[in-house]
Amino acid sequence: MSLRDLRIAKEKQGIHNFSAGPCILPNEVMEKAAESVVNLDGIGLSILEISHRSKEFVEIIERARSLVRETMNLPDNYEVLFLQGGASYLSILTAQNFLSKAGTGAYVNSGTWARNSMNDAKVFGNIIEFSTSENTQFNTYPKLDNIPSDLDYIHITSNNTIAGNQIKDFPKTDVPLICDMSSDIFSRDIDVSQFAMIYAGAQKNLGPAGATLVIVDKNKLGQTDREIPRLMDLRNHIEKMSMLNTPPCFSIYVSLLNLEWMIKNGGVEEMKKRSIDRSSLLYKEIDENPLFDAHVKDLDSRSKMNICFTLKDESMNEDFLAACEKANISGIKGHRSVGGFRASMYNAMSIDSTMALVKVMKTFKS
Amino acid sequence: MSLRDLRIAKEKQGIHNFSAGPCILPNEVMEKAAESVVNLDGIGLSILEISHRSKEFVEIIERARSLVRETMNLPDNYEVLFLQGGASYLSILTAQNFLSKAGTGAYVNSGTWARNSMNDAKVFGNIIEFSTSENTQFNTYPKLDNIPSDLDYIHITSNNTIAGNQIKDFPKTDVPLICDMSSDIFSRDIDVSQFAMIYAGAQKNLGPAGATLVIVDKNKLGQTDREIPRLMDLRNHIEKMSMLNTPPCFSIYVSLLNLEWMIKNGGVEEMKKRSIDRSSLLYKEIDENPLFDAHVKDLDSRSKMNICFTLKDESMNEDFLAACEKANISGIKGHRSVGGFRASMYNAMSIDSTMALVKVMKTFKS
Repeated sequence: MSLRDLRIAKEKQGIHNFSAGPCILPNEVMEKAAESVVNLDGIGLSILEISHRSKEFVEIIERARSLVRETMNLPDNYEVLFLQGGASYLSILTAQNFLSKAGTGAYVNSGTWARNSMNDAKVFGNIIEFSTSENTQFNTYPKLDNIPSDLDYIHITSNNTIAGNQIKDFPKTDVPLICDMSSDIFSRDIDVSQFAMIYAGAQKNLGPAGATLVIVDKNKLGQTDREIPRLMDLRNHIEKMSMLNTPPCFSIYVSLLNLEWMIKNGGVEEMKKRSIDRSSLLYKEIDENPLFDAHVKDLDSRSKMNICFTLKDESMNEDFLAACEKANISGIKGHRSVGGFRASMYNAMSIDSTMALVKVMKTFKS
Repeated sequence: MSLRDLRIAKEKQGIHNFSAGPCILPNEVMEKAAESVVNLDGIGLSILEISHRSKEFVEIIERARSLVRETMNLPDNYEVLFLQGGASYLSILTAQNFLSKAGTGAYVNSGTWARNSMNDAKVFGNIIEFSTSENTQFNTYPKLDNIPSDLDYIHITSNNTIAGNQIKDFPKTDVPLICDMSSDIFSRDIDVSQFAMIYAGAQKNLGPAGATLVIVDKNKLGQTDREIPRLMDLRNHIEKMSMLNTPPCFSIYVSLLNLEWMIKNGGVEEMKKRSIDRSSLLYKEIDENPLFDAHVKDLDSRSKMNICFTLKDESMNEDFLAACEKANISGIKGHRSVGGFRASMYNAMSIDSTMALVKVMKTFKS
């Protein structure tokens, strides 16, 4: 079948993709990626079969690194890497690269992934939980006042996909601030100079699963007394320009296409605006509709990316899911650990999809 | 442009892809992959945008694991995982999962990647070089006689892409045998029961870069006294059916398509036969043509996947590369660390490509 026929079939199906990640990406990105899987820019080879040392791929990864730099206004002391392993692996690299043997790493436990990051670091040394909202099922973002100055680093997770909370104002601190920004990077203004390191699994606002973006202040590396395995020392990845070993080429290529799409569509400013439009519309419906409850009621803690809600009468859950399915709404079921519903609305999502969901909610049981 | 037009353009270009990896994959695999990047099996969503927990993706990864099991006749005590990080990362997991604090890991240093594996393990404990052919630029496979019995494991690299050597007979030993089979897996008969663990970066005979295949005897895990980080403990990956964190979905999907292609084309038996046909043809030319020299002269050490050769008169190198380029032969330049030429001929390569190279060699300077 031709790409055109496939696209037409897809448009006819008109699925609204609310998946939490891997998640929606722009159709034009996927069409260009599909073409390149057969024949990359007419060179007679697929993006899947060229060497990572080929001039074509070196241009791809360098352009991707450079667009991240441009989009996020990186100061010169920051480096951009595309690694493997996901955000979970970066929990290990955080400890390896920032925690000294007798030092302390502090964690803001704002959700499941934040807690995993904290627990995964414990095998490497002294780790403390600085603050948490676990006792209220993460329905607010934990407080971040009075960060002590004697920490090796403090780790936060900016947006929590499972509970749907999000930090609004990043703390000002002299302690190296490390942030897992997997699920809201490129949807908000960031002053990168506040952070020692930002990392993000690609599979939300950046690209397909398999690549992990790392933005790191190179001046903050090399401060620990730990012997770091070669492959885990971020300085080695910087030295080899993100090609210490074979990178996840296709995921990086699609990330590049997606960065280009984002810039063409107005950049982070426009993505931020769209996220406000989508999330305002949906929160309004949840708050006004007597059938539904928002999980996060604190307005300052509400995520613009993942909106978690429940039916007050849980016996209606299956009916609501069926109504969503009938309206071609996909991926709306809440995470298995919390239940309820979750609308994940990343950069590529059109407001039409949010409106489709709101329509189902408005007409449900009325 | 339609996929058909892209394919026709590609066929007209007729590039012979000798890249060492990422490398040639079957055209029909890439076309199916391209379709799925737009619309996976007509479900109305791309393979890049479905959740790794969706029933579609769970079926993909389970089928991929099951085809590896089937193709390699795995005994029940072996598990199949698709991880991230590449073979380099598996060097770390090898030490973490198999090396006890006071134990010893032995390495057969048969090439650059083998040596890296050995050096990368040293940070974790006692590591010895069991044998090497480094003093002759790895132009033979090192000897493997008399493996001591008091090792935690012995690590070998079955095929070395840079020097072009390959082990023919795997050693029989009671010591856990761990093999990096990145560049010749699925091209030869393997009695998996000889190994405690086999791993392979996907980007040769399996699929695109970004996934790493691990085949491990689960009964050999959990024997060390080491505290293993959660994400590095292979038992956790087994327990979570290779979804401890978000897997590299697209690389796994294309690996599945490629496994299906291989089985449809006669399986490992046929791939082995094709590798013999291609490599015999090329070695014959190298050995008979007075202009060329094989790097590996020992017949028992010659790789069937990567054939390294030089021009006796190195001043002709650029002319030969130009002649190759004129004949649409791509990726034939030797690794930057050794120079000369390297023909990487993986499963997807047609004998026609080998014949095209042999033709250039036969007519060069004649």
